[in-house]
Amino acid sequence: MAEEVVIVGGGFAGLTAAQNLKRADVNITLIDRTNHHLFQPLLYQVATGGLSPADIASPIRHILRKQDNVRVIEDTVVDVTPDFVRTMTGEYAFDHLVIATGATHHYFGNDDWEDAAPGLKTLPDATRIRARILEAFERAERTGSSDLTFLVVGGGPTGVEMAGAIAEMARHTLRRDFRTIDPSAARVLLAEAGSRILATYPKALSHKAEQQLARLGVEVRTGWQVTDLSPGSATLRCGDLEETVNPVATVWGAGVRASSLGAALVPLGAALDRMGRVEVLPDLTIPGHPNIHVVGDLAALTQGGKPIPGVAPAAMQMGRYVADRIQNKKSEPFRYRDKGNLATIGRSAGVADLGRIRFSGFPAWAAWLGIHIFFLIGFQNRLLVMIQWAWSYVTRNRSARLIVRYDD
Amino acid sequence: MAEEVVIVGGGFAGLTAAQNLKRADVNITLIDRTNHHLFQPLLYQVATGGLSPADIASPIRHILRKQDNVRVIEDTVVDVTPDFVRTMTGEYAFDHLVIATGATHHYFGNDDWEDAAPGLKTLPDATRIRARILEAFERAERTGSSDLTFLVVGGGPTGVEMAGAIAEMARHTLRRDFRTIDPSAARVLLAEAGSRILATYPKALSHKAEQQLARLGVEVRTGWQVTDLSPGSATLRCGDLEETVNPVATVWGAGVRASSLGAALVPLGAALDRMGRVEVLPDLTIPGHPNIHVVGDLAALTQGGKPIPGVAPAAMQMGRYVADRIQNKKSEPFRYRDKGNLATIGRSAGVADLGRIRFSGFPAWAAWLGIHIFFLIGFQNRLLVMIQWAWSYVTRNRSARLIVRYDD
Repeated sequence: MAEEVVIVGGGFAGLTAAQNLKRADVNITLIDRTNHHLFQPLLYQVATGGLSPADIASPIRHILRKQDNVRVIEDTVVDVTPDFVRTMTGEYAFDHLVIATGATHHYFGNDDWEDAAPGLKTLPDATRIRARILEAFERAERTGSSDLTFLVVGGGPTGVEMAGAIAEMARHTLRRDFRTIDPSAARVLLAEAGSRILATYPKALSHKAEQQLARLGVEVRTGWQVTDLSPGSATLRCGDLEETVNPVATVWGAGVRASSLGAALVPLGAALDRMGRVEVLPDLTIPGHPNIHVVGDLAALTQGGKPIPGVAPAAMQMGRYVADRIQNKKSEPFRYRDKGNLATIGRSAGVADLGRIRFSGFPAWAAWLGIHIFFLIGFQNRLLVMIQWAWSYVTRNRSARLIVRYDD
Repeated sequence: MAEEVVIVGGGFAGLTAAQNLKRADVNITLIDRTNHHLFQPLLYQVATGGLSPADIASPIRHILRKQDNVRVIEDTVVDVTPDFVRTMTGEYAFDHLVIATGATHHYFGNDDWEDAAPGLKTLPDATRIRARILEAFERAERTGSSDLTFLVVGGGPTGVEMAGAIAEMARHTLRRDFRTIDPSAARVLLAEAGSRILATYPKALSHKAEQQLARLGVEVRTGWQVTDLSPGSATLRCGDLEETVNPVATVWGAGVRASSLGAALVPLGAALDRMGRVEVLPDLTIPGHPNIHVVGDLAALTQGGKPIPGVAPAAMQMGRYVADRIQNKKSEPFRYRDKGNLATIGRSAGVADLGRIRFSGFPAWAAWLGIHIFFLIGFQNRLLVMIQWAWSYVTRNRSARLIVRYDD
């Protein structure tokens, strides 16, 4: 009889695992809280009006419609036992379990900051941030206020991309749209507590990224830590210096924490690291349970003394490894192959770190564009996104600039 | 000194009025509750996953960015005096006022039905209905329930288009996506209290539309009135017959009522009809106030004994007339020119009533498609929508099938 495989989470890791079990004689149940796979690396484009939610998200069951050994269930897993998982509405027994529920924001013990500075992990996050940014310009036009400060907290890829896109929007996209205010006078502040932005990149590229952000008009503040946040107010500290700014919108890109489902594995003997990630064995299972795998951003594993980063390529590689392992094709430990990192800054700049090859500026942006379009799920999305980007590159327009209120 | 024109509402009527004052020596303030102009005739496509919100909506200030005599204010008008309007946050004095705030749903005194059967007027309405329809399929897949009844109340153009699109989705788009349930077994019920659907069309076309809906698998029930509605239950009556159905999702397309801003004109001497619309003089002003115009769906006016219908072409013609009148180019009364009506049914059928010429089936669908793409605001939208439709016509796919919860 075919074995039962339960996969929890339809992100890069879970989806790749399911797809790589296409020819296996197993019954797969993929459970996700939402009905869609989200192409998270482009979420900042939705948050800044460059793309629509449907451009970067596809129904999971649609992606897997031709794979007859998968059923997709939209539900939330609340508990894990050695033999089955329990969801809000039912139970699913497994022979093999793959947990791939990813990560969420982390406010370092200041959970009350969330309202003032939403993070960017889901589609509702993105449309909410989009509404907040656009609403700030609308409010200024209404009241004639000229003080328009946007604050982005955290100089990782998300923070850099958001800061660049907001600056781009203020300087170019919205330039002609207002009568009372001058959007291009908006101040975009990027606060990074560490000594440089894009800390996981080589130093030279961090420096390039700072220059490119400065050219777009972003004020990069490295060494500045956010010590207090409330709606409309933020306190930054750098050594003995302290400064309070009054941002019209703040975006949080500073910290992530693993999904809370990791905690459900503790009674089974798993250990969590300080970010809530599950410490996995080199074969991505948890101790004592060779049939329970944890993959993607939820998994904590070091390789050559360095932690495997929480990026899409690592998640996909883990998904593929686990699919092989379930089919007994793999016995050697998981090995992450770092193919490089790319970040984009505004509409024609970026940095690329491909190991020995490093470059920045327009070529990095073009490489980023090509790779992201290539990996977008579903042909239609790729084509539409390409046209949309080609168009907005020429016109600097961002067409998805809707403020939609769902609490009306 | 240039006169002040205040336009309330950025729909077809208000936007057209503003655009036709392009060369006038006036200062225009256009006030809308939202930041976008919505191409409402395509809203049912968003509600059924065929298009994304940004495909049918553009920021008003972006549409008018090159028209220097307009400023756009996102705000809600709460009161009207003979000289100024009051919004939530300010006051705007006018020499000429144009009120074009349109219409909303009407539950004939059963406002508690709204939760069970949302109507389709705004983007949040559309994404909410989309989530409800898709969620019904997800729930059925989870529970294995095979009873999937969708109820559309009201056989006007919106009801007909929604019923056709839901049937199309169940029979074709989702056909391969589920494992436990068979989406094509879903029942789509269209309940119309009157004796025929599309009552404003010639009888022969109503009949054609019924046939085309039946071919898509829609159960058309004319003469059946909804007498009770609650989440998951609906009671229908036809003479002495009574039937209770248990719809997994219900869409309200039965009644509209004019925007509540009409009531603010009563103290100025205006009269409202029973749908809450403002009874205007033949020059679209209200009695005693030759500088206060009411246009679009909010205006009640008869011509040749027949009421002018609440459709986009009438709203645009009124907007143009008022712009001319403000520039003293017009003294004769407003005259509505009916250029015909088109409704679409599923992916390749429809009915067209162009006065002397009437046709149905694929030619009507093609005419509908061409006209709607032509009138979509903004070149990018038109191109993208065309590609999206061409693609979904070939594949029967609906790419924007996202369930996004904003109350998480």
